[in-house]
Amino acid sequence: MSTYKAPLDDLRFGLYDVLGAEALFARLGHADANRELVDAVLDEAARFTETVLAPLNRVGDEIGCSYDKATGNVTPPPGFKQAFDQFVEGGWTGLTNAPEHGGQGMPALLGGVLTEMVDSANLAWGNFPMLSHGAVKALETYGEDWQKDVFLKPLVAGTWTGTMCLTEPHCGTDLGLIKTRAEPIADGKYAITGTKIFITAGEHDLVPNIVHLVLAKLPDAPPGAKGISLFVVPKFKVARDGTVGERNAVRCGAIEHKMGIHGSATCVMNFDGAEGYLVGQPHKGLQAMFVMMNSARLGVGVQGLGLSERAYQNALRYARERLQSRSLSGPKYPDKPADPLIVQPDVRRMLLTQKALIEGGRLLSLHAYSLLDVAEKSSDAGERAQAETLVSWLTPISKACLTEWSIENTYNALQCFGGHGYIHEHGMEQYARDARITTLYEGTTGIQSLDLIGRKTAATQGAGLKLFLADVETFAKQHEGDAALAEFIAPLRAKCAEWGKLTQDVLQRAAANPEELGAASTDYLLYSGYVVLAYWWARSVAAANASQRPQAFKDAKRDTARFYFARVLPRTLAHKAAIDAGADPLMALPDAGFGPQ
Amino acid sequence: MSTYKAPLDDLRFGLYDVLGAEALFARLGHADANRELVDAVLDEAARFTETVLAPLNRVGDEIGCSYDKATGNVTPPPGFKQAFDQFVEGGWTGLTNAPEHGGQGMPALLGGVLTEMVDSANLAWGNFPMLSHGAVKALETYGEDWQKDVFLKPLVAGTWTGTMCLTEPHCGTDLGLIKTRAEPIADGKYAITGTKIFITAGEHDLVPNIVHLVLAKLPDAPPGAKGISLFVVPKFKVARDGTVGERNAVRCGAIEHKMGIHGSATCVMNFDGAEGYLVGQPHKGLQAMFVMMNSARLGVGVQGLGLSERAYQNALRYARERLQSRSLSGPKYPDKPADPLIVQPDVRRMLLTQKALIEGGRLLSLHAYSLLDVAEKSSDAGERAQAETLVSWLTPISKACLTEWSIENTYNALQCFGGHGYIHEHGMEQYARDARITTLYEGTTGIQSLDLIGRKTAATQGAGLKLFLADVETFAKQHEGDAALAEFIAPLRAKCAEWGKLTQDVLQRAAANPEELGAASTDYLLYSGYVVLAYWWARSVAAANASQRPQAFKDAKRDTARFYFARVLPRTLAHKAAIDAGADPLMALPDAGFGPQ
Repeated sequence: MSTYKAPLDDLRFGLYDVLGAEALFARLGHADANRELVDAVLDEAARFTETVLAPLNRVGDEIGCSYDKATGNVTPPPGFKQAFDQFVEGGWTGLTNAPEHGGQGMPALLGGVLTEMVDSANLAWGNFPMLSHGAVKALETYGEDWQKDVFLKPLVAGTWTGTMCLTEPHCGTDLGLIKTRAEPIADGKYAITGTKIFITAGEHDLVPNIVHLVLAKLPDAPPGAKGISLFVVPKFKVARDGTVGERNAVRCGAIEHKMGIHGSATCVMNFDGAEGYLVGQPHKGLQAMFVMMNSARLGVGVQGLGLSERAYQNALRYARERLQSRSLSGPKYPDKPADPLIVQPDVRRMLLTQKALIEGGRLLSLHAYSLLDVAEKSSDAGERAQAETLVSWLTPISKACLTEWSIENTYNALQCFGGHGYIHEHGMEQYARDARITTLYEGTTGIQSLDLIGRKTAATQGAGLKLFLADVETFAKQHEGDAALAEFIAPLRAKCAEWGKLTQDVLQRAAANPEELGAASTDYLLYSGYVVLAYWWARSVAAANASQRPQAFKDAKRDTARFYFARVLPRTLAHKAAIDAGADPLMALPDAGFGPQ
Repeated sequence: MSTYKAPLDDLRFGLYDVLGAEALFARLGHADANRELVDAVLDEAARFTETVLAPLNRVGDEIGCSYDKATGNVTPPPGFKQAFDQFVEGGWTGLTNAPEHGGQGMPALLGGVLTEMVDSANLAWGNFPMLSHGAVKALETYGEDWQKDVFLKPLVAGTWTGTMCLTEPHCGTDLGLIKTRAEPIADGKYAITGTKIFITAGEHDLVPNIVHLVLAKLPDAPPGAKGISLFVVPKFKVARDGTVGERNAVRCGAIEHKMGIHGSATCVMNFDGAEGYLVGQPHKGLQAMFVMMNSARLGVGVQGLGLSERAYQNALRYARERLQSRSLSGPKYPDKPADPLIVQPDVRRMLLTQKALIEGGRLLSLHAYSLLDVAEKSSDAGERAQAETLVSWLTPISKACLTEWSIENTYNALQCFGGHGYIHEHGMEQYARDARITTLYEGTTGIQSLDLIGRKTAATQGAGLKLFLADVETFAKQHEGDAALAEFIAPLRAKCAEWGKLTQDVLQRAAANPEELGAASTDYLLYSGYVVLAYWWARSVAAANASQRPQAFKDAKRDTARFYFARVLPRTLAHKAAIDAGADPLMALPDAGFGPQ
């Protein structure tokens, strides 16, 4: 039976020892977010996720959501509503939202920590509150004052939830193709008509109203992505004064039968002249969509991290308990009938790969969240702008790498169980199935990779990368005389130099042939992720050594960092070779040559 | 909706153009297996698998097997029995078995081709006939004459099926720990008592009798793996004269709920003093087990290949049909509202990776099967022995690489569908779930890797590797002046030299520290698999060029080979670096340091 304990010790290490969250929060004016309060929040989040959410994970998978065709209603798995009510009562939905909308105004960084615990405990459940964040962001940024007044309070309080209605049956990546239309009607309202698919939490009974943020085209819309507008369309109509009226003409037409996240309602939403209001300027919906997406993308990265953590915990327990064969170098537990799996080098390889990707990935993610705080709260406009550039560059790396690694981590965790991992009762196969969505939704890995190499690198002359490399160099200089770090800093610097050169080479080739960007994209993103993690592992060793923690903790960080540098970072060699090969090996084969199908 | 067309053209290319099957079969005395007959077998196998088995794949997944607790009976999904009856009537179960047992005496190579088609069409169904092969092998090799007379005919005819009962709840890899015991009773019979788990096709109603090959310990058994004996235990008792008697005391206690292969019955089998006969010598069951296992391991590799092929076919179709965005270098299909996915370099990367691993992997597998034929039928004892050495060395490579690649291939195929891949109705997520068993059963990838580097390399002073490298060198010499091959042969030779050196280095380090074998094992196996595929891609180009096939076929092989050398083979760089890092980075962290769990 799968269990979960929030990794509070490693989270605190990341927050306090590596990222210096105490000083950061103080500097950003988060007077409330002192260590005592943050620790209390962490403890309570751990209690809630371990005892309320984690026990519902399996029932969520086994029973899933159900759909009533007659009414269009969707019922989440048993226990989900009670847990949601407790989550709302605890004030968790608004943890990081602005106090003027009823939020608690805590740093985004703390929200990232909470999200990890929620997603470890119950990823499918976590999708119900998660989507509200994007809706809140879009309304905060682009909503009229009355829209903020009316919609933000219940969304922040969690008494309503939100959705993002983007995808249609014939278009996901290419939203310029959407067909949903918005016709002006009386009182500045619009009638929205069309079908949206893959709408997470599109319909459910956890709260009385659901606020849909919907992309649609106005009658005079220019063709393509420049003709998209954003509308707010509630399940129950809402007047400008906040009065909730009758049911709107939006209805769930079906829920999808999916490989995993069975407890998450993935809805087909039919808008049949549903009343809505324009959010922001006409035809400027794509900007608003990116505001929603960026928030969601970091969150999906954390989903990958959370699943990896839980799968690892269970694989580690099994590797310590399961007795099978002896160590090749002689019995390690001679009093037992066989040694536990953990003595086997190849099992240790699988465990250490998970550990290195999880603990390093956690810092990659926490750092990105901390940059959101800096970008919002710093008193220095230059620092705000730099943080914005850096987090916008890190977002595709964090989303894609943490989710790709969750595929690998849940694979390795299951593999540690041997054939037992394939059996439902152990819970490991659910993590592998749940993880599989994370590299798909909110933009596939391929889309993240194009975002990184195109919009976030080529289009900015590598602005994000330059800032990151400068951070690395600052760190390296700080520790130039530190003998304990030399073994990490030298290869990190070499890898960073290679990264800069590689980037230049790709951009140069792309100037002559735009296919070069696409050809390099995924390998370039993964290469980047591994170098980013090398930095965080070097910083982990430095932070551990500088801390008051026990020697065993420091040794474990150093040993894991050594493993990472010796046996994971070399994957960059393969990615670099693939990038260096350029577009020709991908583009030479004619479309017809791929096969007779 | 997922479809399947047997890849007859590529199978014929592999058989005839690359492996020279016509001449080989003639030389080995397979007079019947001329081209006309082999072609007819291929066509009929394609028809059967495409039209009978493939349509049952989805229902097999959705309905699965059912278990009746009151009777212990297991019912396979609807249609499975009718398909099995047709398979038996067509004589397919005995295609490669010896004529004296009622088989058709066709080459094992042809059996490998049939297995690929069956597994593409319906992997779960394929598990019912598959396990009989191991039982037949064990009885052929170690059975007494009367056992052969009584059991082999119905197993070969497919009127009975067989199982391999090895695993117990507390032991899978380490069979020395088994508790099932065998007590001598009257007439040279034994009473078998114990519980076996993960028994594929352990119980079902496709045939009236099931022949279990069971590992158990005699009362005087020495401890550990040297005390294991093999018994044949039929579901209905069978006398020495072949008379079938009453129901034996063996019963299915449950079926497992698994991530995939829902149509395959994975049974808990309870033996409660069931009557059986000793097969072979007392305490020599482990040898017999390896005979069963080796046969099954090549078969599981083919399962990975078959799943990859089907997933690829569907991904390719989708990538050609789905219109989304435009090529970065300008519209490629300007008459359509958007370009199909296949114009995107990153989609082509995913497709080409599948294509290269599938077509190359097919040759790796077919070659191994052809060596079974040489090992059995060659008139030259030296050639027989060499083929035996080579296939025994290739078996873990084929099993582990083809199954690991099936994880990657079904991942990439699903990824081509974006979010739609995660939805059950498209069929892609089933392939990913089904593939997940293949790296686990018949020995995990870790176990295959230890087999390769330990028993098949260290213990033989690299006998298999040397034979393979000699084959590569022969091929390279033959084509020394061939300008079309130079771009492949030079890096292939360099990689082979590196491989030899790497092997020596590992064995040398292992002499001082046995953990080095385990530490290198999985990276070494994958490294080996990629070099083996480089050889088959070079040979594919040579064979295509030497053939009468259309220029487009030759170009497609060359372009795919270029892709493989440029963008897949460099993975060896990462594996080599991991191997070179040695055991220390894996062994340094104390067991307690992995985490608090």
